[in-house]
Amino acid sequence: MPRIDLDDLTDPEHSGFLRDYTSLRDVQLRTRREPAEGLFLAESVEVIRRALESGYVPRSFLISAARYGELADELPADVPAFVAPPHVVEELTGVDLHRGALGSFVRPAPRSVADLLAQLPSGPARLVVLEDIADATNVGAIVRSVAAFGVDGVVVSPRCADPLYRRSVRVSMGTVLHLPWARATSWPQDLDLLREAGFTVAALALSDDAVALGEFAAPDRLAFLLGTEGDGLSRRAVAAADVVVRIPMDPRVDSLNVAAASAVALWETRVLS
Amino acid sequence: MPRIDLDDLTDPEHSGFLRDYTSLRDVQLRTRREPAEGLFLAESVEVIRRALESGYVPRSFLISAARYGELADELPADVPAFVAPPHVVEELTGVDLHRGALGSFVRPAPRSVADLLAQLPSGPARLVVLEDIADATNVGAIVRSVAAFGVDGVVVSPRCADPLYRRSVRVSMGTVLHLPWARATSWPQDLDLLREAGFTVAALALSDDAVALGEFAAPDRLAFLLGTEGDGLSRRAVAAADVVVRIPMDPRVDSLNVAAASAVALWETRVLS
Repeated sequence: MPRIDLDDLTDPEHSGFLRDYTSLRDVQLRTRREPAEGLFLAESVEVIRRALESGYVPRSFLISAARYGELADELPADVPAFVAPPHVVEELTGVDLHRGALGSFVRPAPRSVADLLAQLPSGPARLVVLEDIADATNVGAIVRSVAAFGVDGVVVSPRCADPLYRRSVRVSMGTVLHLPWARATSWPQDLDLLREAGFTVAALALSDDAVALGEFAAPDRLAFLLGTEGDGLSRRAVAAADVVVRIPMDPRVDSLNVAAASAVALWETRVLS
Repeated sequence: MPRIDLDDLTDPEHSGFLRDYTSLRDVQLRTRREPAEGLFLAESVEVIRRALESGYVPRSFLISAARYGELADELPADVPAFVAPPHVVEELTGVDLHRGALGSFVRPAPRSVADLLAQLPSGPARLVVLEDIADATNVGAIVRSVAAFGVDGVVVSPRCADPLYRRSVRVSMGTVLHLPWARATSWPQDLDLLREAGFTVAALALSDDAVALGEFAAPDRLAFLLGTEGDGLSRRAVAAADVVVRIPMDPRVDSLNVAAASAVALWETRVLS
């Protein structure tokens, strides 16, 4: 099934595919639907390309006529590629898709924390654990730094934003597609699994008794625990950590952005190769 | 002039004030108008409070009825505070102002690079120089890190986004209101002024002959030069720098987000007190 030109949305033959692209403005709805329906969306030519190269299985594509040529040679022949003018794309998705290309891909089966840990190298390793970060942009930005600094995997708390949500994938520059990650099911008890696998869990927070990042002797196996922008880590999560680390900063500034804070912490404790 | 309840927008007596709040969705228009008309907007109760505390002179306020009580005691009695229901705010501004509070403030006179340099301490000092960063969110995020790590000032290139644009101020958490900054008028020639003031200009870029950040011996007076997300620094800017510094990262990752990169570079080269 090659290129299918889509001038209107009424053909019932297409509706099963096109459903993947509806109501994109409704983040809450999409956040529920995408895992339940087993898909995730790759937005932009570059992210679609990266998903294909990484072996993710496409369900369909929705591409503006202007962008189709850039991808045509790379699209699998047996997957429908809907090509539509901007007003049809906007009518279907509810958004002005200025990046001009969406791919719907089969969402990989959820990985458990235990499975993630089993995959890690046995020596020095780095994990990042995200508690309840609600903003997919922040999750994506953290994942980009995680990938840049060679972190081995990410664990997200049960209520953390979906790393495979469209905006998170885009902000991560597609790096999330290569990154082993798992969602904890029991919080913060699943941190014990990290400890059993030899990780020191270091909460990044501003408490007064915290160790300054520059004085923190990073262990071989280190999991950094990061919390939401507004309230920071929950007390239970901080209590479940082995150590609290703070980034010293000007006292007139409340905090760093969580993506900036994570980049600094990961840089400072990087495993030198 | 205390609280003025605004049920409609037709009273000609108010139009001179209310003009400060129109067309907020049109970033390009606002970016031209705000400097030309000598104002900037503070959004949210917290940022308005910080602007007032820092001595910025308000022109007027536009606040939802639900939020007015939080600020009422702190608003100067001689400045109009328009209180309006959400649909009137949206009709006026063109946006759904969910933070519920805007203040229009007198924009400080532009500071020249020479004036900024004259204000700096004579010993160790840090500057950040931003070339053509188009996204106000990135400018605000960088400024937040700049403030956190005690950087003494910021220079922006002639085409860089306005640090006092509403979104930049908000993302900076208001820290831009305390930060000395200047816009270069001659680019990249103004970098010579920094050098004449004893600064080493270090371009942050990924060129192969760059010094790795961890091996970079930061001089007492250091100005970090950062470029746009997409294309990075211009060749002319890199050529005008004294040294090129790169943040080593996984080769499968193209780059860090510019806000993350700046946080890492400023952390690594911080002046320890």
